Amino acid sequence: MSMPISIMEAAREIRAGSLTPLELLERCLAQIRRHEAAVRAWVLVDEAAARQTAVQRTREAELGRWRGPLHGIPIGVKDIIDVKGLPTRAGSPLLGHRPAATDAPVVAALRRAGAVILGKTVTVEFACFDPSPTRNPWNLAHTPGGSSSGSAAALAMGMCLGALGTQTGGSLVRPSAYCGVATCKPTFGKLSTKGIVPVSASLDHPGPMARTAHDLALLLVCLLGIRNWRPPAVPSPPRLGLLETAALADCAPMVREKTHAAVEQLVRAGAVVQPVALPPIFAEVMKMHRRIMAAEAAAYHRERFAAHRDQYGPMIAALLAEGLAIPAVDYLAAKAWHRQFRRVAARLLEGLDALIMPSTPTTAPASLATTGTPHFQAPWSLARLPVVSLPCGLADDGLPVALQLIGRADDDFRLLSIAAWCEASWQFSALPPLWKSESLEPTDEGAKP
Amino acid sequence: MSMPISIMEAAREIRAGSLTPLELLERCLAQIRRHEAAVRAWVLVDEAAARQTAVQRTREAELGRWRGPLHGIPIGVKDIIDVKGLPTRAGSPLLGHRPAATDAPVVAALRRAGAVILGKTVTVEFACFDPSPTRNPWNLAHTPGGSSSGSAAALAMGMCLGALGTQTGGSLVRPSAYCGVATCKPTFGKLSTKGIVPVSASLDHPGPMARTAHDLALLLVCLLGIRNWRPPAVPSPPRLGLLETAALADCAPMVREKTHAAVEQLVRAGAVVQPVALPPIFAEVMKMHRRIMAAEAAAYHRERFAAHRDQYGPMIAALLAEGLAIPAVDYLAAKAWHRQFRRVAARLLEGLDALIMPSTPTTAPASLATTGTPHFQAPWSLARLPVVSLPCGLADDGLPVALQLIGRADDDFRLLSIAAWCEASWQFSALPPLWKSESLEPTDEGAKP
Repeated sequence: MSMPISIMEAAREIRAGSLTPLELLERCLAQIRRHEAAVRAWVLVDEAAARQTAVQRTREAELGRWRGPLHGIPIGVKDIIDVKGLPTRAGSPLLGHRPAATDAPVVAALRRAGAVILGKTVTVEFACFDPSPTRNPWNLAHTPGGSSSGSAAALAMGMCLGALGTQTGGSLVRPSAYCGVATCKPTFGKLSTKGIVPVSASLDHPGPMARTAHDLALLLVCLLGIRNWRPPAVPSPPRLGLLETAALADCAPMVREKTHAAVEQLVRAGAVVQPVALPPIFAEVMKMHRRIMAAEAAAYHRERFAAHRDQYGPMIAALLAEGLAIPAVDYLAAKAWHRQFRRVAARLLEGLDALIMPSTPTTAPASLATTGTPHFQAPWSLARLPVVSLPCGLADDGLPVALQLIGRADDDFRLLSIAAWCEASWQFSALPPLWKSESLEPTDEGAKP
Repeated sequence: MSMPISIMEAAREIRAGSLTPLELLERCLAQIRRHEAAVRAWVLVDEAAARQTAVQRTREAELGRWRGPLHGIPIGVKDIIDVKGLPTRAGSPLLGHRPAATDAPVVAALRRAGAVILGKTVTVEFACFDPSPTRNPWNLAHTPGGSSSGSAAALAMGMCLGALGTQTGGSLVRPSAYCGVATCKPTFGKLSTKGIVPVSASLDHPGPMARTAHDLALLLVCLLGIRNWRPPAVPSPPRLGLLETAALADCAPMVREKTHAAVEQLVRAGAVVQPVALPPIFAEVMKMHRRIMAAEAAAYHRERFAAHRDQYGPMIAALLAEGLAIPAVDYLAAKAWHRQFRRVAARLLEGLDALIMPSTPTTAPASLATTGTPHFQAPWSLARLPVVSLPCGLADDGLPVALQLIGRADDDFRLLSIAAWCEASWQFSALPPLWKSESLEPTDEGAKP
């Protein structure tokens, strides 16, 4: 029996009675048992609690009692986000074992919609730069990207059907792109950051990760607590601005070719695509992003860093040391620049339905000592505009290539509809070679989590 | 003939045809000619432009064409606020003579309501601390307070009927209190700061100054562009919280006695007054206020200060040097403290219609080397709550004492109605001795501006 791996399919089958929440959970747990030792996507799988919830959702389904659109859907939560009863470790030895007293609002919203919270996924230390132990399921010698590494890798392997992550620079889009899954960074401020370990209050965006644009829309609907939602109409054909990425970083020929091929598919399907040059202010993105992030992260970590500097990884320690040395006037100049940048970035969308560009300049680097470069994602975190990243194909190295669409502020659902339109053109459906067979036996334990 | 000195009276007489805008302007100009040399409230009186406008408003009045509630009312504008065609000097030699290209939105709003913009009033250098040449009309050896020194002194002498000022620490309330006039610091963010030389974006509040609470309400209605406004009902009797000011600074016995007498009058009129203790967080107000103000002012002045340090006064130079040395993490800690403080301050109003306390701990100090202390005003600038300050009587030294009422965020007009109710109990109507006689001849020029 083929098991659904998109939320939409699974939810449809659960509603139809051809799949139970418990069966779906067991399939996810089987994937975890088989592949977790290699992929290392999870900090903690709360098997007992998840099974208890899945049993309850199964009973409710039998009685025709539906919690919401995510009834019985297993979800992974990045381990900087509070889940009641589980510790939030943030990839650091410093936060201790104390369980969170309440769910973060984003977790509570998914639970209300019927989701089964499966456990905590690996995050890069404090959602910054020092690589996590997670590996890229498409090639275990490659980084899965970060900082939402575990959420992306778990999704790519069907260990869960949806996940929560966060992005300050590129922490939703980069790992999703490297691992061949989809994500949406909603407009800044749309989702609560309460109950989430902060990196930088000016830049932190929580967001959903899944396999398709429709799944992302469904997750976002639930995260926002919207009732009776209907997807907005896609402008037909959408008018897209193809960003000239040379201003941001060198783009690998492999990614450039795949991007052009994917854009060509959109044009054949009727999209109007015009080139959009990046204004000169984009040259300062990485410097200003780093300055705001370093100062705000240092303000949050200050006391802990002073007391336990030796327990911080080298990359975050460098960031915090840098942040502590930034004068307030430089920080304020960066914030003034940020306001100006947001205006310039928003104007790029004039006359267009969305902007489009590769999510990353390369496929996942062949290294576990880096999570890759945020050059292609950080501008849109600064811009605070909604972003949807979707895989569009595989490069010659067998790794996924993804494109990101950037939309107007607060127009997240229209962007998701445009993304669904693009997705239909690309028809990306490849799975990591590691996945091998769908018919895993629960006893076939390649590895224990 | 007795000349009206409140906006309400003057507007009524202009509507009734018993006073023309031109007559009113000439009376203000006569006050300026007679007293400006002693008081030094004005940087620039644009007599020609004001007379031209007043002639026009007079003609319109004859034809029954009314611009708005301020038709023909002469207004002074603090010289950090742009008035089209006039230079904005901000009390500094550094800003040059270039005339402002457009009115600041707050000025434009008053013009639209029919006001006659009379000129620019003296401000303390860059609205900070170094005293201006303005003197207190009640006693020329005493400070008028700052930084809206000229607006307060001009109003006190009937040189204009309304004025614009700004407050970052106590720059509206303190000079108004010292000079025996009224002011309203509206809720933070209610009025645009566009076209105003900034001190500190987190704290800058533009606001109206006048002689009565009703005049302030009228000015605020015009500043906000509200049409068909009707004053909200005053809760009868209002429930007031009398703040224990010992936590903020020593209060002079003279001011304490006058405060208790004024509160006693309110109680006799039916108000319910209960003591309110200030939470411990108020002990940090001055430190945190200074830190936020210094960092933000330094960010704004940075380049100019580096190039022209010698042209800054000693107090602002010290502030900017301090600001340049503040680390971003300390600034961010102050901003986090600020968010917490705002929550604590807002909670003080629970179960009350307004808070009440003296506007200043002393009457105007007998010095021209200081503008007085902001200890009593700065907490409410940080709190971002609306404040109305009104004179309630004269102290034994013959100088005015004022009380300030603090209201709920965005409930500015109800606070103004409560203020009007208090004002009716106090019946403060004294004029500075300097005023002497109402019947000044235009030829009786005690001094030329």
